Amino acid sequence: MGRVTVRRPVRMIGPRGERQRPDALAAEEPLELRVNGKALAVTMRTPGHDVELAHGFLLSEGVIGGKADIAVARYCDGKGPDGKNTYNVLDVSLAAGVDPPDVGVERNFYTTSSCGVCGKAALDAVRLRTRFDPGSAALRVPPELLAELPGTLRERQRVFASTGGLHAAGLFTTAGEALAVREDVGRHNAVDKVLGWGVLEGRVPLREQILLVSGRASFELVQKAAMAGIPMLAAVSAPSSLAVELAEENGITLVGFLRGSSMNVYTGGHRIPETDTPESTAPSYARHAG
Amino acid sequence: MGRVTVRRPVRMIGPRGERQRPDALAAEEPLELRVNGKALAVTMRTPGHDVELAHGFLLSEGVIGGKADIAVARYCDGKGPDGKNTYNVLDVSLAAGVDPPDVGVERNFYTTSSCGVCGKAALDAVRLRTRFDPGSAALRVPPELLAELPGTLRERQRVFASTGGLHAAGLFTTAGEALAVREDVGRHNAVDKVLGWGVLEGRVPLREQILLVSGRASFELVQKAAMAGIPMLAAVSAPSSLAVELAEENGITLVGFLRGSSMNVYTGGHRIPETDTPESTAPSYARHAG
Repeated sequence: MGRVTVRRPVRMIGPRGERQRPDALAAEEPLELRVNGKALAVTMRTPGHDVELAHGFLLSEGVIGGKADIAVARYCDGKGPDGKNTYNVLDVSLAAGVDPPDVGVERNFYTTSSCGVCGKAALDAVRLRTRFDPGSAALRVPPELLAELPGTLRERQRVFASTGGLHAAGLFTTAGEALAVREDVGRHNAVDKVLGWGVLEGRVPLREQILLVSGRASFELVQKAAMAGIPMLAAVSAPSSLAVELAEENGITLVGFLRGSSMNVYTGGHRIPETDTPESTAPSYARHAG
Repeated sequence: MGRVTVRRPVRMIGPRGERQRPDALAAEEPLELRVNGKALAVTMRTPGHDVELAHGFLLSEGVIGGKADIAVARYCDGKGPDGKNTYNVLDVSLAAGVDPPDVGVERNFYTTSSCGVCGKAALDAVRLRTRFDPGSAALRVPPELLAELPGTLRERQRVFASTGGLHAAGLFTTAGEALAVREDVGRHNAVDKVLGWGVLEGRVPLREQILLVSGRASFELVQKAAMAGIPMLAAVSAPSSLAVELAEENGITLVGFLRGSSMNVYTGGHRIPETDTPESTAPSYARHAG
């Protein structure tokens, strides 16, 4: 792609004065996703891994369950105003027998006339039912292994180092190996790209994997994990209340504030074995341990 | 409201062992927005300031231009499954003569049959034209004043301190006074709440104000500033490439990486007077200045 970063002149003001210099920005461009010839969504994303993004998005939305549900995915060959292909429109054809999503009756922008059960209707509108059962996955991951994942994610984040402007998501084995790490200006996109990698590799449902995100854990990220069959989601920052509720409902292990050797386990703690030294009985010299 | 945070038990694992204790989570609940009786959107938000959120959202979407364009905004009085009002559905009636948005032909999920000018069409689908002209606003803000804003924002962030889970947006005068600070699990919602405050106060277009966001500056946040007529957007973190492009197009001053006394000015630098000590000629003792 070559459009992951964009260079721009910037005026840098600091405590000792100012100077002008070029700066690398995280690229953001619209991607239009078309399914069976109909425009389905436009997402603002960092170009690259767009086919993965489309696969992950359609998995997250419950349109597909695996690689076989998509017949073809390719860039539209139309030209932009300057006569060049912008690579900003992706055409997906679903396999025979796979129902396309209802355009116009979308979860973010949908129509209904009932006003009966108010809050319930609003939540039902955004909630999807997974075809997999992440709750039955039997993996176990010790805290020491979880503690290593953010460092690995950071090492694999190529663009962040230069722009400081990207969210990252990573898919890890229970041995701590990073299977796929993706970055994007949008946190949902970073997760969709990683899930799309899983779809394209024929690995969905991802029952033996851990999904790590560089930011916070929201309702939508837990829902994406559930739709991919992932039993463990770890976030570097805080989860929301509804993220915790949805993780519990789906039997997903949700870890937040994963920093250094510390972490908070909100749900599904049975997959994270207890550490040997409960804080209350820890010897005091532990404070000084190297 | 009383639902800004939710308490949950959490298992905290640290270097010296683990313990169980209650933790405060940032509340996340769906808000369904109805306009003239039709469901328009569902957004995952932190409850509170929902009327502001609705006003700001409709301003950002170009549906309204000010307070007079909305006749009534109130919670739907339907009951939830437990017989209580969930306060998760907000009904807005537009004033006579104000066109409702086209439901089903939404920017995030729209239908088109043309494949001619590919990338252009995708970008046009998400781009809105502001009815105000932020570029003509004459305000000037010295870097020293900008440097103080993140500290003020943080002081006013009541929930972040307890949950670590919220984005914040603040609207400031050129004297550095915080007019409104709002927090939300969604960064777009935090901005919409602040803009909605401006609408309800009859202050839109916000030609003399600075909008500060606690995170990154994306295309959509710059677009929201433009739609409200705000000439200066400052972000604590990085801007994206398209955020910078759109700021330039609209004559908006865009500041990123606003941290301590340092900041990057990407566009509209004429509104930020030069500092007195260019780095190249700064006396070396500046390094040691208190």
